[in-house]
Amino acid sequence: MFSLVPFRKSALRPTVALTLFGLAVATVSAPITVADAQARGGLDVSQITIAPNLSHFTLENGLEVVVIPDRRAPVATHMLWYKVGSADEPEGQSGVAHFLEHLMFKGTSTHPNGAFSKLIADIGGRENAFTSLDYTAYFQRVGKEHLPAMMEMEADRMHNLVLTDEVVAPERDVVLEERRSRVDANPGSRLREAMDAIMFVNHPYGSPVIGWESEIKALNKDAALAFYDRFYTPNNAVLIVAGDVEPDEVRRLAENTYGKVPRRAEPGARLRPAEPPLQGTRRIELEDPRVRQERFSQVWIVPSSSNAESVTSEALDVLSYVLGGSSSSRLYTALVLDREIALSAGSYYQATALDDSRFAVFGSPKPGTALPELEQAIARVIDVLLADGISEDELARAKHAMVADAVYAQDSQTSLARIFGAALTTGSTVEDVQSWPQRIQMVTVEDVKQAARAYLTKEPVIGYLKMPKQPGPEANDASAQTTEERS
Amino acid sequence: MFSLVPFRKSALRPTVALTLFGLAVATVSAPITVADAQARGGLDVSQITIAPNLSHFTLENGLEVVVIPDRRAPVATHMLWYKVGSADEPEGQSGVAHFLEHLMFKGTSTHPNGAFSKLIADIGGRENAFTSLDYTAYFQRVGKEHLPAMMEMEADRMHNLVLTDEVVAPERDVVLEERRSRVDANPGSRLREAMDAIMFVNHPYGSPVIGWESEIKALNKDAALAFYDRFYTPNNAVLIVAGDVEPDEVRRLAENTYGKVPRRAEPGARLRPAEPPLQGTRRIELEDPRVRQERFSQVWIVPSSSNAESVTSEALDVLSYVLGGSSSSRLYTALVLDREIALSAGSYYQATALDDSRFAVFGSPKPGTALPELEQAIARVIDVLLADGISEDELARAKHAMVADAVYAQDSQTSLARIFGAALTTGSTVEDVQSWPQRIQMVTVEDVKQAARAYLTKEPVIGYLKMPKQPGPEANDASAQTTEERS
Repeated sequence: MFSLVPFRKSALRPTVALTLFGLAVATVSAPITVADAQARGGLDVSQITIAPNLSHFTLENGLEVVVIPDRRAPVATHMLWYKVGSADEPEGQSGVAHFLEHLMFKGTSTHPNGAFSKLIADIGGRENAFTSLDYTAYFQRVGKEHLPAMMEMEADRMHNLVLTDEVVAPERDVVLEERRSRVDANPGSRLREAMDAIMFVNHPYGSPVIGWESEIKALNKDAALAFYDRFYTPNNAVLIVAGDVEPDEVRRLAENTYGKVPRRAEPGARLRPAEPPLQGTRRIELEDPRVRQERFSQVWIVPSSSNAESVTSEALDVLSYVLGGSSSSRLYTALVLDREIALSAGSYYQATALDDSRFAVFGSPKPGTALPELEQAIARVIDVLLADGISEDELARAKHAMVADAVYAQDSQTSLARIFGAALTTGSTVEDVQSWPQRIQMVTVEDVKQAARAYLTKEPVIGYLKMPKQPGPEANDASAQTTEERS
Repeated sequence: MFSLVPFRKSALRPTVALTLFGLAVATVSAPITVADAQARGGLDVSQITIAPNLSHFTLENGLEVVVIPDRRAPVATHMLWYKVGSADEPEGQSGVAHFLEHLMFKGTSTHPNGAFSKLIADIGGRENAFTSLDYTAYFQRVGKEHLPAMMEMEADRMHNLVLTDEVVAPERDVVLEERRSRVDANPGSRLREAMDAIMFVNHPYGSPVIGWESEIKALNKDAALAFYDRFYTPNNAVLIVAGDVEPDEVRRLAENTYGKVPRRAEPGARLRPAEPPLQGTRRIELEDPRVRQERFSQVWIVPSSSNAESVTSEALDVLSYVLGGSSSSRLYTALVLDREIALSAGSYYQATALDDSRFAVFGSPKPGTALPELEQAIARVIDVLLADGISEDELARAKHAMVADAVYAQDSQTSLARIFGAALTTGSTVEDVQSWPQRIQMVTVEDVKQAARAYLTKEPVIGYLKMPKQPGPEANDASAQTTEERS
């Protein structure tokens, strides 16, 4: 299986990668390519709409379906998204959503353990699955003639999963090893895990997607099946099919496969415990000999695209871009280019979430710069922005770049499918996605200043990833991760 | 109602007040008084046993009963303890244990709203109730001839509580106001609440006993009654009667009152989510113009008397005493007397808890001393103790003082009853309480060093309570509180 990278990773610009609509497509009936955009000599961003040619319907059993035609190649991307993630887990069972994702590959009576994956390998397809705070998804990318088989087999495992203790116990060991190698052995991951935990002390976003070790160890077949029976039902799922397909044909296939799965449960509203307004600036310092690159990060809780009022979420998107989203951003210019105290500096805003989300600034100091010095320099950049706001010129350049970025990113059929899947499982609608460029156009310098003053003046959570004074023998660092992928 | 102070509060010595067995009585058949102890010219601490004359039995419906005769005055202390506290609340319903404690005063069909309290006032008695992380308790202190009425009325409200929306809604406003005045208006309380939340990120000890404001607002009659029906049952309660009473008579009265309450539920084992081993030193700084006295505190998670192995809990008791439990303690001597940089300094160990608990050091700087300087000075005192341990002389003085303190404290019949109630609702036994002085005698200097090295080397949670650089007009500070009392 290949690794589906959820975000574009770059020390310079993680911001786009973490935004919901940072990846998008143009108004033309088929997504335009990077070459198209370059040939046009730029884009009129005011005309951009996301995937205007998609079809969107709901089956009788409640399954929502989105079809996004893209005829550049005879392939189909098939993704089934469940509106359930780690933030929906029962108390004391952290990790069960991700554990079930692993167990979904254990087969059904019709397609025993391994048969689904073997077929995909045999036909030269690719598959993966991922669990996040708010959703769990399964996907395959295959030649378009194999789409019916994918739909039949994915629908089959929505209600016919067979689990035995013989397959469950070893898979739990696989997950424990995944946790050890990805989190425990990685100081950067451990710091992020701890920062999340002290940032969301009551809301379940404070628990890691992969789960706390002691709770993973207690997971078993019954816990996984209870979770499956409660949340894996057509009325709690979204099917996304992108590629060289006809919407009517997809609908017919969906009715013949998914349409035959009964409603298995009524999961109801996704109400999570609210996060209380803790007072005080929270900090966490992690010093580890495996750190090769020190890092400062500062995170605030902010509204997401799903729960923000008016254009607050879009204003935060723009704010993140201006503050730290490019090599001409405020932070990069001040810290890397002018003062030369940082190797990298930037910001990100994670717009995609059912509940409140995160806005962060970060940087890695040059050797010789201490983390408190970097922190103070970043604070000064923010203070200037809070006092004076951003300029009309910065705003215009940000808007153009953000929508252009979306065009450049849309070469990936998978990315586009993923944008809609993530949106529809975190409280947004198809229309919300499609109108994102128009909403970005509406953002004013005043909106950005108001959003900055409303949220960046609140007390943040601050993290220091530090080297001991005597450097250790090993190196290790990692990038942002709120999604557990099958490897 | 009078206020039952749960701990002796003193800037110098909060330690004793927070320990389970810091208050105790001597081996004589009736508790000896301070005057007795002074008249004897000291105590042979090796002979001390706690309340050797108590009676302990269980009714057929599962109610556990402890009777502690104390014939110094014709009064009786009657306490009913439930093995349920805020750490047993359903997710998203923080505060429901404390809210129900308030609602328990709303009456039954036999004794309508106010009748119980009115009777107590009419006979010159006192009553109170309190909720903590692990237990909820109701108590009255009355002339001994009124004990039967107390038992009848307390047993009545164990199963006959009548609640209507008309009494529930206004009481919720009372609790919200209690939260505002005790926590929100008090920077010291807010800092402690935040420190608890970032210390226990997964275990429910991270939520305040009084509840998060947004969740208190959502509490209602149904939530309170569901909690009542699940946990208020004789097999989940402990009755403590202390005073001028005969055990046989108390047993007969208990059978005729509490004995008639059916088992209403089987609450089962009290299994809470475990606390993960977060890496990194966590800090929180709260700056507020209402702070008149700055304060540093540093807290580690440690075993409690209920879940510690061997003599670890007793060794932590001794460690706390030597480190910061008196005016000749290491911290007080170094910071207040020798270096004169602190107005107060000390430590405490909270032994009473069902699950892991807290060990803390703290201090308030003299004007002119910055909190980081105080922090470093405290760290140096701890480093010396970690390196060299404590002396035999310190150990002997600590043991003698701790048991003697217990004797001096036992003048309060209420305190003694409270020790047993807290112990029996947090996983300890009558025998555990009775043998505490003997176990303290067994602690060696090596035990103390091992306990210090095992826990004080772990990464703590650190809190700074700070004044702004320009002092504000108001003053406010508060002392440790993990218990919500009716006021």
